[in-house]
Amino acid sequence: MHSLKAVIITIGDELLIGQIIDTNSAWIAQQLNLLGIDICKRIAIADTKEAITNTLHSELANADIVLITGGLGPTADDVTKPVLCDFFGGKLIVNEAVLAHVKGIFERRGRPMLARNLMQAEVPDVCTVLHNAQGTAPGMLFEQDDKIVISMPGVPFEMKGIMTDAVLPLLRNKYEQVQAIVHCNILTFGEGESFLAEKIKDIENALPSHIQLAYLPSPYAVKLRLTAHGSNEQRLRIETEHYRNEIAQRVAANVISLEDLPLEQIVGNALLAKNKYLGLAESCTGGYIAHKITQVNGSSRYFKGCVVSYATQCKIDILGIDPVLIKSHGVVSEAVAVAMAKAACQQLRSDIGLGITGIFSASDYEDQSPVGTVFIAVAGNGKVLAKQYQLHHDRLQNKETATQIALYMIWEFLTKTIV
Amino acid sequence: MHSLKAVIITIGDELLIGQIIDTNSAWIAQQLNLLGIDICKRIAIADTKEAITNTLHSELANADIVLITGGLGPTADDVTKPVLCDFFGGKLIVNEAVLAHVKGIFERRGRPMLARNLMQAEVPDVCTVLHNAQGTAPGMLFEQDDKIVISMPGVPFEMKGIMTDAVLPLLRNKYEQVQAIVHCNILTFGEGESFLAEKIKDIENALPSHIQLAYLPSPYAVKLRLTAHGSNEQRLRIETEHYRNEIAQRVAANVISLEDLPLEQIVGNALLAKNKYLGLAESCTGGYIAHKITQVNGSSRYFKGCVVSYATQCKIDILGIDPVLIKSHGVVSEAVAVAMAKAACQQLRSDIGLGITGIFSASDYEDQSPVGTVFIAVAGNGKVLAKQYQLHHDRLQNKETATQIALYMIWEFLTKTIV
Repeated sequence: MHSLKAVIITIGDELLIGQIIDTNSAWIAQQLNLLGIDICKRIAIADTKEAITNTLHSELANADIVLITGGLGPTADDVTKPVLCDFFGGKLIVNEAVLAHVKGIFERRGRPMLARNLMQAEVPDVCTVLHNAQGTAPGMLFEQDDKIVISMPGVPFEMKGIMTDAVLPLLRNKYEQVQAIVHCNILTFGEGESFLAEKIKDIENALPSHIQLAYLPSPYAVKLRLTAHGSNEQRLRIETEHYRNEIAQRVAANVISLEDLPLEQIVGNALLAKNKYLGLAESCTGGYIAHKITQVNGSSRYFKGCVVSYATQCKIDILGIDPVLIKSHGVVSEAVAVAMAKAACQQLRSDIGLGITGIFSASDYEDQSPVGTVFIAVAGNGKVLAKQYQLHHDRLQNKETATQIALYMIWEFLTKTIV
Repeated sequence: MHSLKAVIITIGDELLIGQIIDTNSAWIAQQLNLLGIDICKRIAIADTKEAITNTLHSELANADIVLITGGLGPTADDVTKPVLCDFFGGKLIVNEAVLAHVKGIFERRGRPMLARNLMQAEVPDVCTVLHNAQGTAPGMLFEQDDKIVISMPGVPFEMKGIMTDAVLPLLRNKYEQVQAIVHCNILTFGEGESFLAEKIKDIENALPSHIQLAYLPSPYAVKLRLTAHGSNEQRLRIETEHYRNEIAQRVAANVISLEDLPLEQIVGNALLAKNKYLGLAESCTGGYIAHKITQVNGSSRYFKGCVVSYATQCKIDILGIDPVLIKSHGVVSEAVAVAMAKAACQQLRSDIGLGITGIFSASDYEDQSPVGTVFIAVAGNGKVLAKQYQLHHDRLQNKETATQIALYMIWEFLTKTIV
């Protein structure tokens, strides 16, 4: 059976010079994967006629579906629309529905409309227009030799709107008969990928050829992902879950979840399940843990709030930590982390409190600890879990890593320690 | 003059199925750009022999430099090293220096070493080894017909270490005579790209052909970027700055900065310049503004801390906001935002306080405001700046946008309003 292949092309100099990070491609890949469509390549190219034309020629030779984002803005540096029009042998015409939509957007925003905004309503006469409910640049669908090319704006929420409203339903209809792909995940914490690999090598070696195992490492956590290809989704799922369970049993001490969820959502679900409220007292992570927790929809059902006591005085004033304790142990110490965790419970009226204090750059504290030292404590129900870590990387990486460890410790406290 | 062209290839199924977002490519592109090397393409491919070999063949036909990241892990799903070895006609041999380095890493971490970790010390005999100070997988440099191919691990800090220690100095030496590239940026806020384009169209039309203008929009902010190519960097810089100044003067009311810095650093610099301390009281943004502020090295010189008063009770308990005020105006109101800003000054002992309250998902508050409503206030020195916004997108996008607006309002308060 022929498996459908898709290529994602992102257009724009800002991607090539690194001014922006491409988050669109990952989102598109996830969506297509759910439909059983493989992404065989992702390409970022310049916003020039030559680059767009050459890439389309070469990729249409291999792929069934080409998804293009970017290059559709109203300014002169955006050439994608006329280039696609030429490529498919059409000419630009005003589309009345798009024109009315663009005018409506400007009216609702109470803004005057410019000639260059009107140009957004011009589309190649050889394409099908895909409605962009969120913005002025319409999506465009071209068909050639049973292959399809779709062009969308690069603004993430506009692209997502067009994908959700038009592209995904269309692809679902068009390719109902395609090969199925099933993924199963195991999220582990605290053991490196080599050690996990060693422990499960007999299972890995015995996997049938249509099931692959991948190791997706991040600091302290490794996601194991099984991917199965085949024709019968139901059978694939049973088969993949069998191997998933076998692996999860083997490395049980390190398994956090069999669901494909971010750690903050796993923590949120554990809080909900235990009916506990969380409060945070952050120092070196600067609010990043609170940010992660509140990325989850409905987090107000288990999250009270956070005190980012960046300045030492805030630890005393707001959290009520004894200045003598700070003086005798140092602000970066287990004693202060524990006091912060307890204060987070008390001041924020939460069942479980997390405290974190550390030093992530030499200028941040008048403390003698080496850069990368961090103390994390979780408190609640009269019990305390505290750990010290030495992180080795740059400020941003250390912030990210400390946050992952903190989230894991909340989960550990909830499910293994105590409450 | 021949301009050097580079291609970035990232290897790994996790990129193609969208499990991780590629941040490496943007960083590499920025670094190469500073050396005057153009990135003409970025490609993400699967970790298979066929994909790697085909892509190398086709890209080496056009590019002078190919940088590869990923696919070098110790587990069985990583095939890049043997494939590169075959491609360049070599065989794998143990490199004693790498072996000693890998052993040293495991010794320092007090962890046993596995056979598959030893395999990290095997390298093709046709490559130059690039030392990976941060990890076990060495970088590799291959040369062919005056073109170079460099392979590095995909872990961001390992890749950055190899780039900084080995690759960038090497490229700098090898290509000292290349074409210069000069970028100039103007960061604007509060006006859409079409309107900016309209205001400066005569300047844009009069640009010489070796200088391009790009519009890089994000919510409420647009970065205008001039890029000049040529042989004399000094002359290019003078010329580009001339046009930059002309444009900046034309749209002066919207200009925040002529430096290429993130908004949080522009705010930090403004706080330092005015010698003011900042405190935050966040609700709907959940600590994201504090996170952004503390991403900047040395932010403790102007940032006191933040109260993330997610639960209404925290606004009363920690910030000391009058429950009657909350009851009469609603928790999502200008009055509460202003009270939060003032409380941030008082409770965190800061000169300038920011308060933000809004509703970003229907489940978060028992408030009657429509989703997307947000009130932001800045207070200090007896003065207040308050605004209401209606945001239209999803939770994460709204959080990001509200944070950008909040950072801008702090900057506006500092530089235009008052202090």
